[in-house]
Amino acid sequence: MNRWLLPEDITDVMPAEACKVESLRRAVLDLYQSYGYELVAPPILEFLDSLLTGTGSDLNLQTFKLVDQLSGRTLGLRADMTPQVARIDAHLLNRADVTRLCYAGSVAHARTPVGSSAREELQLGAEIYGCATWEADLEAITLLLKTLSVAGLEKVYLDLSHAGILAGILDGQSLDKETIEALYGLLQSKDRPRLGEWSTCLPENVAKALVALIELNGPCAEVLAKAKKELPKHAAIDKALADLERLVSAAANLSANVELSIDLADLRGYQYHSGVMFAAYVDRLPQPIARGGRYDHVGQAFGRPRPATGFSLDLLTLANLSPLNVRKMAITAPWVEDAELSKAIAALRDKGEVVIQVLAGTTLEAAEYQCDRELVKQGSSWEVKKK
Amino acid sequence: MNRWLLPEDITDVMPAEACKVESLRRAVLDLYQSYGYELVAPPILEFLDSLLTGTGSDLNLQTFKLVDQLSGRTLGLRADMTPQVARIDAHLLNRADVTRLCYAGSVAHARTPVGSSAREELQLGAEIYGCATWEADLEAITLLLKTLSVAGLEKVYLDLSHAGILAGILDGQSLDKETIEALYGLLQSKDRPRLGEWSTCLPENVAKALVALIELNGPCAEVLAKAKKELPKHAAIDKALADLERLVSAAANLSANVELSIDLADLRGYQYHSGVMFAAYVDRLPQPIARGGRYDHVGQAFGRPRPATGFSLDLLTLANLSPLNVRKMAITAPWVEDAELSKAIAALRDKGEVVIQVLAGTTLEAAEYQCDRELVKQGSSWEVKKK
Repeated sequence: MNRWLLPEDITDVMPAEACKVESLRRAVLDLYQSYGYELVAPPILEFLDSLLTGTGSDLNLQTFKLVDQLSGRTLGLRADMTPQVARIDAHLLNRADVTRLCYAGSVAHARTPVGSSAREELQLGAEIYGCATWEADLEAITLLLKTLSVAGLEKVYLDLSHAGILAGILDGQSLDKETIEALYGLLQSKDRPRLGEWSTCLPENVAKALVALIELNGPCAEVLAKAKKELPKHAAIDKALADLERLVSAAANLSANVELSIDLADLRGYQYHSGVMFAAYVDRLPQPIARGGRYDHVGQAFGRPRPATGFSLDLLTLANLSPLNVRKMAITAPWVEDAELSKAIAALRDKGEVVIQVLAGTTLEAAEYQCDRELVKQGSSWEVKKK
Repeated sequence: MNRWLLPEDITDVMPAEACKVESLRRAVLDLYQSYGYELVAPPILEFLDSLLTGTGSDLNLQTFKLVDQLSGRTLGLRADMTPQVARIDAHLLNRADVTRLCYAGSVAHARTPVGSSAREELQLGAEIYGCATWEADLEAITLLLKTLSVAGLEKVYLDLSHAGILAGILDGQSLDKETIEALYGLLQSKDRPRLGEWSTCLPENVAKALVALIELNGPCAEVLAKAKKELPKHAAIDKALADLERLVSAAANLSANVELSIDLADLRGYQYHSGVMFAAYVDRLPQPIARGGRYDHVGQAFGRPRPATGFSLDLLTLANLSPLNVRKMAITAPWVEDAELSKAIAALRDKGEVVIQVLAGTTLEAAEYQCDRELVKQGSSWEVKKK
C-alpha cells in the first residue's frame, strides 16, 4: 500500500513552488515575446527516429522508449525539446527568413543526469534559425542572461567554448562516435595523464594539441592569445578562435555582474552543437544552470540545412535557486447566500484580489496564499477588514 | 527519410495556436487563483499502480506503459491528472481542512479517445477537497462556466447526472467491472431493445429501472419529477435525486446563456465519480468540452477518504474552439551597433511592446506578430513610425 510513492528522482511540484515556477514561466516567456520569439509546443511523444535525429548517443540513453499501439513502432518520450523545435523550423514552418522560436514543456530522462537529482524537467528555451552570424549568438546570450536576471540571479559566470576547435584538431583522424564521447570525458575532467596515455594512438601533433586544450581555460583575452600560439594552424581552428574573439568583444558590455571566461575543453553535454557554445553557472549549483550555442547541423539531419543558435534550461531548477517571493495575499469570505456578498466578492476578484470563500462547517488552509484580510458584514454592506 | 512525420493523432502546436493556448492558460489559471485555488504540478510519469489507483479499466487501456530502468518496475505516462492531484491532497498536503487545487499539464492517450483526433492533451482542471456538501459542487460548476466564458464560449449546455442512481438500482446485484462497463455503453447509446435484452438476466424490477433510465433526460424539473415516480425507492436513489434537486436550484441563476438539463443515463467517461456528475457541451463539438463531478472514493483508495469534487478539460480543444484573437502587434528595428537604438528598444520592451531586431542581411517572418511599426533614425534619435 505505498501507492503514493513516486519513482526515484521523480517528484511532485507542490503549491508554493508551483506558483513560483508559473510566475517565472510567464515572466520569461513575456521576455522572449518582447524580443519577437514565437511560442511552439511540440508533442511529448514522437517516433524515436525523429526524436534522436542529429543528436548524440547520450540522448538515446536518456530517452524512455515505449511502443505505439497504433503503429507498432517505437516511440520516445522526449528528453530534450531542442531537436523537436529544429524539426518544426525545418519542416513545418519551412521559412527562408530568420525565425525566432521559444518553448516550455516537460521532458523526462530515463537515467538521472550526472549531478542532478531529477529525472523530469520543465525545459525552457529560445532558438534563432536562419542567421549564421555572431549577432544571433549574442542575442541568445543576452536573452539567457536576462532570463537569469528575471529570476533574481544576477551574478553569473559564463563559460564559452567552440566545437570547431576539436573538429579542427581531429580533422583527418577517423574516430568513431564512442571514442569521441570518451575523449569528451577526458577533456572535461582535465585528466592530463590519462588523456596523454589515451592519445598515444594518435599522431604526435594531434596528441599534443589535445593535451594543450585542457590548459586553455580562464580569462578570455589570455586564453585566446595562448590558443593562437599553442593550437595547430587549421582553417576550422582559426575560424573558431575568430568567432570567439568577435563574440567576447560584443558580450563584454552585457552586464557588470557577468564574469566571462573561456574553457576550450568543455565539450560534454553539448549534444548537437557545431559552433560557439556557452554554459552559464550561478552560485549554489555545481552544474551549469543553462547551456546553449550554435547547432547548424540538426536542420540538415532533417533534410534542410539552417543555421541555428539558442539555449535551454530547467525551469524547476531556476525556480529552486531563485530568491524571489511570489506568495499572494488573500481575503477570506464566508459562504452565505447573499447577493450583496456575491457582488462584493466579484468586484474584488475583478480588481485582481484573491477571495477565498470558506465553505459552511469547514476551515481553510492554503499554503500559496497569506490570508491577511476578511470580508465582514457592516450593516447592510460588506467591507474588507484586516485580520 | 520521413523523420519529420509524427505518430497518428499526435501534432505540434504551431506559433499562432500556441500563443492562444498560452494566453488562455494564463487567463484561466488567474481565474482559479482569484478563487483561492493553489497550483500543483504532478510528474508526467508514475508507477502504473499509483496512476491507476481508484480508477476504471478505461484509464488502464488509455495509459502508455514503459519500463523504469532504475527500479525495473512498470511506469505509466499519465492519461489523466485528476487521480494524481487526489494523491497529492491525500498524502502530500495531508490537510484536514478544505483544499482547493488546480493544475495544467500534458497527458497522453495510448489510443485515440472516441470522438477525438488527438492522443495528447493539455489537461487543465480544478478540484475542491474536504467539503462534502453541494456548495463545493456549485463552485466547481461556476468555475467551469467561467472558464468557458474566459475563452469566449458563452452558450453552454450543461448536462447533470448522478452516480448514486445506478448504484441504487444495482444494489444487491453482484456485477463485475466489465459487465458494468458494457451497461454504461448501452445506457449511453440509449439503445432500448438491446438494453432490454441484456437485462433479462437481472430481476424484473432492476431491468425495468434500467430501461426507465434511458428516458430520464431533458429539462431538470420534468426529469426529476418523472424519476421520483418511475425509479424504485432506495436510500441511494433518494439521496441522488435530492442532491440533483438542490444543485439545480442553486445553479439555475448562474448565467442566462447556460442551458441546464439532466441525463440520468449519461454515466460513461466518468472514470471514478461517485456523486453528482456534469458535462458541458458547446456548439461545434459533439463531445463534452469539459467533464466533472464528485469523486469521494479516489482519496480512499490512497488510504485516506476525502470528499472531492472538480472538473477538467483539454486546453488545446478549448483554444481551438475559442473565437478570441490574440495576435500581437510588433515593431521592427534594424540591427546596428548604436547605443541610442539599444536604449529606445529597451524602453519600448519595458512598456510591453514587442520589438524584433532584423539581423543584418536577413528578412523576417513571424506569424505570431503583426509588424505594423518600425524604429527609424530621425536626426540623432530613433522614432517609431507606422509602416
